[in-house]
Amino acid sequence: MGEFELIRRHFQRPTNSYPDTVALGVGDDCALLQPTPGWQLAVSTDMLVEGRHFFPDVAAEALGHKALAVNLSDLAAMGARPLGFTLALSLPAADDAWLAAFARGLFALADAHACPLVGGDTTRGPLNICITVMGEVQPQQALRRDAARAGDDLYLSGRTGEARLALELMRGTDWAVGHAGMPALAQLRERLERPTPRLALGRALAGVAHAALDVSDGLAGDLGHILAASGVGAVIDTAALPVAPDLRGLPPEHRLDCLLNGGDDYELLFTAPPAQRQAVAAAAVASATPVQRIGRVHAGAGLCVREADGRERPWSPHGFDHFA
Amino acid sequence: MGEFELIRRHFQRPTNSYPDTVALGVGDDCALLQPTPGWQLAVSTDMLVEGRHFFPDVAAEALGHKALAVNLSDLAAMGARPLGFTLALSLPAADDAWLAAFARGLFALADAHACPLVGGDTTRGPLNICITVMGEVQPQQALRRDAARAGDDLYLSGRTGEARLALELMRGTDWAVGHAGMPALAQLRERLERPTPRLALGRALAGVAHAALDVSDGLAGDLGHILAASGVGAVIDTAALPVAPDLRGLPPEHRLDCLLNGGDDYELLFTAPPAQRQAVAAAAVASATPVQRIGRVHAGAGLCVREADGRERPWSPHGFDHFA
Repeated sequence: MGEFELIRRHFQRPTNSYPDTVALGVGDDCALLQPTPGWQLAVSTDMLVEGRHFFPDVAAEALGHKALAVNLSDLAAMGARPLGFTLALSLPAADDAWLAAFARGLFALADAHACPLVGGDTTRGPLNICITVMGEVQPQQALRRDAARAGDDLYLSGRTGEARLALELMRGTDWAVGHAGMPALAQLRERLERPTPRLALGRALAGVAHAALDVSDGLAGDLGHILAASGVGAVIDTAALPVAPDLRGLPPEHRLDCLLNGGDDYELLFTAPPAQRQAVAAAAVASATPVQRIGRVHAGAGLCVREADGRERPWSPHGFDHFA
Repeated sequence: MGEFELIRRHFQRPTNSYPDTVALGVGDDCALLQPTPGWQLAVSTDMLVEGRHFFPDVAAEALGHKALAVNLSDLAAMGARPLGFTLALSLPAADDAWLAAFARGLFALADAHACPLVGGDTTRGPLNICITVMGEVQPQQALRRDAARAGDDLYLSGRTGEARLALELMRGTDWAVGHAGMPALAQLRERLERPTPRLALGRALAGVAHAALDVSDGLAGDLGHILAASGVGAVIDTAALPVAPDLRGLPPEHRLDCLLNGGDDYELLFTAPPAQRQAVAAAAVASATPVQRIGRVHAGAGLCVREADGRERPWSPHGFDHFA
C-alpha cells in the first residue's frame, strides 16, 4: 500500500451513515447527494495555509476541527443545514500520528453536525487544507448580508475578543501579558483554535432574522459588510457587548479593540426587526446559544459606537475617529 | 485597494448570467444555488500543486483551463450537467498579468460549459489551486464505477496517449524524441495542458451507459477501478484502440504503453449493454464526440488485452505479464 493510499485510509469511514442525503460517497468521480427538493444549495470554500491561518505547532486534532469549523460557520451564517463536505489536502509527508489526530478532530465535529465527508483529493506539497462545505436552506429563508433593514435590532451570539487575546498572549504582546496574564492562555487558546460553529442558532434564525454573517475578521469590520451590502448604518451599544472574564482586566481601549476588531470569533452577527424579539429569544433558547442585542440598524450609513456615557462616536475600521 | 482585493477582482464578473440556477453568487458567506428539484447533486474536488500537477513554466491561461477542466471531466464521467464551481487559490504574490491570463483560461472554459464561479477564497502561500465543482443528474442516471455488467461493451471517447507522449518529449526521453520528434511537441502539449472535458457526451450517456469514469491515470489502471468496483473482468482489443498520428511511429511497446498507461487523457471510458449500441452511437453524434468500442466486459476478473493476432494476455498495471 502506497504512502498516499495510507493517507486516504485515515479519511475513509466504514459505512454510509447518511443514506437519506448521501447517495454515493468517497471513491467515484463525484459524490452524489440528494438535497431536499426545492431547497437552495448553500456552498462555501475555505483554504487554510500554514503560517497564515495556523501556527506550525498547532495540535493536529485542533487543526482538523478548525478547518471544518470555519466552513460550517459559513453555513450557520446563511441559516443552512449541512449536507456534506469535501476535503483536499496537500501534505509534505505522510505522518501517521498527525493524520490520525487531524482526522479525529475533523470527524468529531463533522459527526456532531451530521455533515459527512463525501469526497476529496490528496496530494504531496506544502501543507494546505481546502474544505468545501455544502448545505441547504429553504428559498427566501437564507440569511443574506444585503437583507438588513433600517429599524432592525443588531444581535451577537456568544462573545468576541477571546481569540484575539489568545493571539496577543502567544505573541507576547505587553498589554496582553501584563493584564490578562499567561495562565489564561490555555482556555483562550481553545477559543482561537477550536471555534464553535453556531449551526443550530443559524437554522433557528432562518426565516426569523434579516441579515447575518459570521464574525471572522472582527465584529466592526464584518458588520461593515452587512451595512454596505444593505445600504444602511448602525450603532453598537458598547455597554451591551458581552465581555469574557479574561477580558475584564484589560485597559478599556484594548478591551474594546478585542471586542470590536478581534477576529477569529466565528460568532453570528445578525439583524432582525423588533417584532421578532420573542422569536429571536426563542431561537437562542432552542439552540442553547447565548444571544445578546448589541445595537440597532438605521437608515443612514456607517458605524457608530455608543459609549457607556451615552455619547455616540463614529467608528472607523481602525478604531475611534477622535477627529470626527 | 489591497493586493488581494486586486486578485479577487480578476475573478469578479459583472452580472449573474445564470439567474435560474445561481440565486446568490460570490460575496456572501455562502453562494446559493437552485438545483433542479429531485435531481441529485454531483460534487468533486481537485487540488493542483506546482511541480506535481503542472510545470512551473506552464502558461497561466492553460493552467486556468486545466484546473477547471479536470474537475468538469469528473462531472462528465458521472453524466452530470454543471451547476457551478468554487475556486480557492493560494498565491505567493499578486502578479497581475499572470492572474489575468489564469482567469481568462478559467472563464473561457467555464462559459463554454455554462458553469459559473460562485464562490472562492484567496490567500497568500505556496501556489495551490483547489476547485470544487457541482453538477446535477437525474436519480438512477448517474454513471457510477460499480455499474458495469458482464456482457457490456467497453467504449472510449477520443484517444489516449498524447498527453503522455508530450510529457516524455518534455522530459527528453530517448524513445519519444527519437521516434515522435520534437516538432510534434507543440500540438501534443496542447493535449497535456488543455484537456477537453467530455461533458456533452457524458450527459448524453446518462441513462444509456452503465459504468463510466474519466481516464486520468491511464486507461488500463482506471479501467481496473471499474472492474474492481463492479466485480467483473474485461478484455481490451488493442487493434481497436484509436492511435493518434503522432503515436504511429513509436516502437509498438512504447505505443501501447502510451495508449494504456498514459495518464492525463481526460477521455471517458464507459460500458454499455450491446442493446444500447445504437443509443451510444447517437450520443456520440449528438455530442460531436468520437467514440470507439474497444473491448468487452465479462463475468470473470482482471484485465486482458487481445493483440492483433487474436491472442489474449493478462495485463498487469505495469504492462504485459509475460510469465502468465
